[in-house]
Amino acid sequence: MLTQIDHVAFAVTDLEAAIGHYQRVWGLTLAHREVVADQGVEEAMFALGESYLQLVAPLSPDSPVGRFLARRGEGLHHIAYRVGALEEALASLKQSGADLIDASPRRGSRNTRVAFVHPRANHGVLVELVQLGEQEG
Amino acid sequence: MLTQIDHVAFAVTDLEAAIGHYQRVWGLTLAHREVVADQGVEEAMFALGESYLQLVAPLSPDSPVGRFLARRGEGLHHIAYRVGALEEALASLKQSGADLIDASPRRGSRNTRVAFVHPRANHGVLVELVQLGEQEG
Repeated sequence: MLTQIDHVAFAVTDLEAAIGHYQRVWGLTLAHREVVADQGVEEAMFALGESYLQLVAPLSPDSPVGRFLARRGEGLHHIAYRVGALEEALASLKQSGADLIDASPRRGSRNTRVAFVHPRANHGVLVELVQLGEQEG
Repeated sequence: MLTQIDHVAFAVTDLEAAIGHYQRVWGLTLAHREVVADQGVEEAMFALGESYLQLVAPLSPDSPVGRFLARRGEGLHHIAYRVGALEEALASLKQSGADLIDASPRRGSRNTRVAFVHPRANHGVLVELVQLGEQEG
């Protein structure tokens, strides 16, 4: 079902400061930046091997990432797995008793289709499933 | 400095239950299992693309992972980056103001050499650096 880690996401309060940190301390180059209004975040992506590191900053304090930061502070937020067939993966997960936040795919950044799985029935880990768009496949 | 994500680690209370979950729900195959007494954990690794997912369970409640679980519950624990030259990476990080938990490498699982970087000066993210051993290089 899973083919690789698509990205690992870190929640940050100040996106500019965090981008500067990852450039200066970790020597990474910014690959992509995008506001995803649907998720209430601005994202910055750094390529690392076949995966990305993603910084996510909230567009407002009452967004999911804003509430996460108020509750837990900056840090690891979610892991995203790349899948070949998103609907099939969701059907399999539902069958296995996973707690799907998105019963069907929605639009993600980078022209992807995504769906989130709740940490509740997943040993505390928030998961995003990512299927690449046609031109990236 | 960084070449790829080596692994992403999830803290769990019951290693057997969590291994069963990752096999059944996510369709993954156990690749490696090891007690790392030095870190106070038992680890289980699942290969995913060029990286691993790692489950870490504490050997005792007063170990670092045991205290993490008591404070925050199960979930994302750290991210590990693979590096080619661990001493050089540590020198560069120290120069950049990173807060090194290990000033010099120690032995990790899978015959690796590792060092941890504190989340304090890293936007809340605990990082492990991993250099592969000779026979894995």
